[in-house]
Amino acid sequence: MSPLKRYLPILDWGKSYSKETATSDLVAAVIVTIMLIPQSLAYALLAGLPPEVGLYASILPLVAYALFGTSRALAVGPVAVVSLMTASAVGELAQQGTPEYLGAAIVLAFLSGLMLVLMGLFRLGFLANLLSHPVISGFITASGLLIAASQLKHILGVPAHGHTLSEILLSITYHLNEINWITVGIGTGATVFLFWVRKGLKVQLLGAGLKPFLADVLTKAGPVAAVAVTTTAAAVFDLGDEGVRLVGDIPSGLPAPQLPPFDSELWLALAGPALLISVIGFVESVSVAQTLAAKKRQRIEPDQELIGLGASNIASAVSGGYPVTGGFARSVVNFDAGAATPAAGAFTAAGIAIATLFLTPLLTYLPQATLAATIIVAVLSLVDLGAVKRTYTYSKSDFTAMAATIGTTLFFGVESGVVAGVTLSIALYLYRSSRPHTAIVGVVPGTEHFRNVDRHAVITGDRVLTLRVDESLFFANTRYLEDRIYALVADRPNIEHVVLMCPAVNAIDASALESLEEINHRLSDSGVAFHLSEVKGPVMDRLKRTDFIDHLTGQVFLSQYDALCSLDPVTAHIAESRTPKKAAQSKVWAGPEI
Amino acid sequence: MSPLKRYLPILDWGKSYSKETATSDLVAAVIVTIMLIPQSLAYALLAGLPPEVGLYASILPLVAYALFGTSRALAVGPVAVVSLMTASAVGELAQQGTPEYLGAAIVLAFLSGLMLVLMGLFRLGFLANLLSHPVISGFITASGLLIAASQLKHILGVPAHGHTLSEILLSITYHLNEINWITVGIGTGATVFLFWVRKGLKVQLLGAGLKPFLADVLTKAGPVAAVAVTTTAAAVFDLGDEGVRLVGDIPSGLPAPQLPPFDSELWLALAGPALLISVIGFVESVSVAQTLAAKKRQRIEPDQELIGLGASNIASAVSGGYPVTGGFARSVVNFDAGAATPAAGAFTAAGIAIATLFLTPLLTYLPQATLAATIIVAVLSLVDLGAVKRTYTYSKSDFTAMAATIGTTLFFGVESGVVAGVTLSIALYLYRSSRPHTAIVGVVPGTEHFRNVDRHAVITGDRVLTLRVDESLFFANTRYLEDRIYALVADRPNIEHVVLMCPAVNAIDASALESLEEINHRLSDSGVAFHLSEVKGPVMDRLKRTDFIDHLTGQVFLSQYDALCSLDPVTAHIAESRTPKKAAQSKVWAGPEI
Repeated sequence: MSPLKRYLPILDWGKSYSKETATSDLVAAVIVTIMLIPQSLAYALLAGLPPEVGLYASILPLVAYALFGTSRALAVGPVAVVSLMTASAVGELAQQGTPEYLGAAIVLAFLSGLMLVLMGLFRLGFLANLLSHPVISGFITASGLLIAASQLKHILGVPAHGHTLSEILLSITYHLNEINWITVGIGTGATVFLFWVRKGLKVQLLGAGLKPFLADVLTKAGPVAAVAVTTTAAAVFDLGDEGVRLVGDIPSGLPAPQLPPFDSELWLALAGPALLISVIGFVESVSVAQTLAAKKRQRIEPDQELIGLGASNIASAVSGGYPVTGGFARSVVNFDAGAATPAAGAFTAAGIAIATLFLTPLLTYLPQATLAATIIVAVLSLVDLGAVKRTYTYSKSDFTAMAATIGTTLFFGVESGVVAGVTLSIALYLYRSSRPHTAIVGVVPGTEHFRNVDRHAVITGDRVLTLRVDESLFFANTRYLEDRIYALVADRPNIEHVVLMCPAVNAIDASALESLEEINHRLSDSGVAFHLSEVKGPVMDRLKRTDFIDHLTGQVFLSQYDALCSLDPVTAHIAESRTPKKAAQSKVWAGPEI
Repeated sequence: MSPLKRYLPILDWGKSYSKETATSDLVAAVIVTIMLIPQSLAYALLAGLPPEVGLYASILPLVAYALFGTSRALAVGPVAVVSLMTASAVGELAQQGTPEYLGAAIVLAFLSGLMLVLMGLFRLGFLANLLSHPVISGFITASGLLIAASQLKHILGVPAHGHTLSEILLSITYHLNEINWITVGIGTGATVFLFWVRKGLKVQLLGAGLKPFLADVLTKAGPVAAVAVTTTAAAVFDLGDEGVRLVGDIPSGLPAPQLPPFDSELWLALAGPALLISVIGFVESVSVAQTLAAKKRQRIEPDQELIGLGASNIASAVSGGYPVTGGFARSVVNFDAGAATPAAGAFTAAGIAIATLFLTPLLTYLPQATLAATIIVAVLSLVDLGAVKRTYTYSKSDFTAMAATIGTTLFFGVESGVVAGVTLSIALYLYRSSRPHTAIVGVVPGTEHFRNVDRHAVITGDRVLTLRVDESLFFANTRYLEDRIYALVADRPNIEHVVLMCPAVNAIDASALESLEEINHRLSDSGVAFHLSEVKGPVMDRLKRTDFIDHLTGQVFLSQYDALCSLDPVTAHIAESRTPKKAAQSKVWAGPEI
């Protein structure tokens, strides 16, 4: 593929763009626009930013993704988890409502964009693999709870702040006497209405004989309806004077593009959060994109996705927005509505731009409680307690990482949560790898096969010890192997030969090589020869680069049966002369164990 | 084993202690004492501490190790690398020569002791596995260079300071005009003499007809001779008045045991360095202990070694010493001289205690340059450039970690060096693991064996794709597997079945399980069935705890041949009817590949 085509996927899908495709894309764009307007206002609120910033983050970023992205259905824009992370990162550096706060959010988007582009160019997408599923799932569940809690203050109409569950709840409790009951009415009303729209409306509409497509569009328009009704009520009854917090004047018109100012101290302070936001945003986005692509047997290129999302974030920063990524619900809607190419995103951008230019005056009286209700209803679907239970049943170690992520996120904040989860899951993995599966093996009578002595009725002699190791040898497990071999030899005074059987060893790193040398050396000190068997080709090639084989006191056997015949012909002869026992006699069924 | 016996190995070896063993232990103790006196003074100097602190660290710690340690030959006490790390950690918090500096060193020993004991009780010895051989080897080489450079100032007689190579060399350059030429004479003379003792003396003595044992003892006494000669010269010619820096008055008498004071700020500041010192000290010590134990088919218990070394460090702290561990050269000498039990260490402790009580007045005139010479000669044997070259030849990835460790240690200090090495080696390992070895396999004609299509002449159909994965599936490689399967399917429009062949999969973590569910789901969206084959028993047991098998669109086959017969009988029939081709026709010799 030419580099231009690789980095600009639009050149690929653009050349077969037809009128039909354009129609599909346009229909999808209209539905997504309707959904995105209240969402972008609400998520800006969640991020602690003026509402128009949410709109700005839903225009240019979509155009940038349409140029650079590879997913045909991904809908980019402000999302809940990234908005929460923005609030947490920026909140440490500036006071909400100040120009410094907005400036920091813009720089955060810019840094995150740069990092994503660089990760894409250097093909570092694999970094996202360090986030295990239980950690991501735990993080998103905890974020959902945290976001819902943070929106309570808008539903209650009290001032409150904080970035952890305890801070938020304490702060709300402290201000409980300031509850504004009209706000509570609007907030709970909107929440109940939106829950009903989400859970019950579609079924009722279908029952009333509406076409599925229309029923779907009406359901998606629920938040818009809530916004329209509460805004009208607030305007008619002048609820602002009753203490209901409204969105207020939104500057109409589009922001002039400009680069964020360079301030080394600020950039440095935001680098860590920007990296976390980039990785979390990428993981969320790429998994949505892959799910949707698979439904049409399309492919997405993870490294190019990094560039696409990076371009979106840079576009967001230069147009006064804040960090964005691909949203789950929104992308599914886009896909279901028939979006055929990334052009649907560009059309959505046009829709949002028109809304920003002409509709913002209508939103002056929009109660913040309505936006909080749309957030709460949206994020509670992120909370997946079933996944916590499933993980607990499947693997205690994965559950530990998940529980640590949830706990740390809720009580120490989002950044600590991600870092704790990743660190713990790597540590647990290294711990498990540091104890590789090994088995003493013997020959199955009447065959040339070798099996674990603990699971099968096999024959072994007392002069030769064969240990099969079922994992690649590397620094974290090599000491365990040494300890195990020394312990086995110390317990068996008659041993003359130790054979390490390596059919599952895909690699031997420098630490493991030194350990093998050490084992060879120490066994030779105690008069035992050390052999290898069934070493894979590539591993053997690498060993040949060293003088290990020259110093080896024993041999390298092609097969374990060769080793037995050569080192312990008596046992080999006994095994050969017996008829194979029935499989049923093996102690445990071990599957097709090698 | 009773807990008492497990935690107090002395109860085990003590009961068979005889007069013969005692004699062997005594002889070894005398030789080690002679070697240890100048070493402990020199290493205290290296750590920036008064010389007597080195002696204190060579008394009680040895008794504690004799009670709790499991190695029969390990000689505990101050060592070069740990002394350097002490200087670096304590130097950040206090000025050399102040009571605060000494106090911090004592706290460091105490914390390190506590950590080691806790690691031992919780069996956390595996943490040491995170230090790969190239990282340790690189760290020790760099430390050797750093120590030698830091001793240059004593050889030149100039004041200088710094904890990195550039700081030290710059500082020395700055003071070059203050060189004391008498000091240079003593320093270079002692260095040349000690090198000659180490390299040439033994051969000459043996040539002169001396018994090997006596030649050995005389060689080990080299540093004592250098100390005696230069001290006498300094006393006779009153070299202190000529600007030669002498050791000065050493308080004779033993320190009264006392607990280090608790100061939360100081303890917190030293916690990180204490952990690094503990792990590095443990790794150094345990590898010496294991090497020596293997020579007599004895065993050491790594977790109990942690307790032994921890007890030594606590003993060092309560008796006014600083962090200690098992020394390499000293332990080999102890072993060669016939030490049969840890009692040899206790006898050595008695020797050092006697020296501290009665010999310290003799050391007043000892030139510091002599001690610096003994350090330089000792540490240059730590520098192993051959290992750097061998690692480079064997594995570029291991070499990268090693080079990073050396560079960071030399130019950013010892703590950064260890942290950088460990982080990089874990990152490189995860990077490699994130790309597991996979192979599309086909059936070998005339057999039921399956082999890599790229390496062997095998038969495949175009309706069934079989991918063999050669590693356990876990969070870091699961996305790679997904990408690979989707890409393969996207390229093959005729595919109806995908079989994942798992003979080398020892574990599937929760992330991998979700990925398999996702693969199953997405393949089903594109009309492809997903199957597994040759799943190991324990892995299957775990999968059965979930509803994965119920949702699987395909089946789980016991053997890959069953899968082929069931899914693509035509290809199976073709393969069966052909005679096996000769092995020579396989494209590449791949060893006994599974």
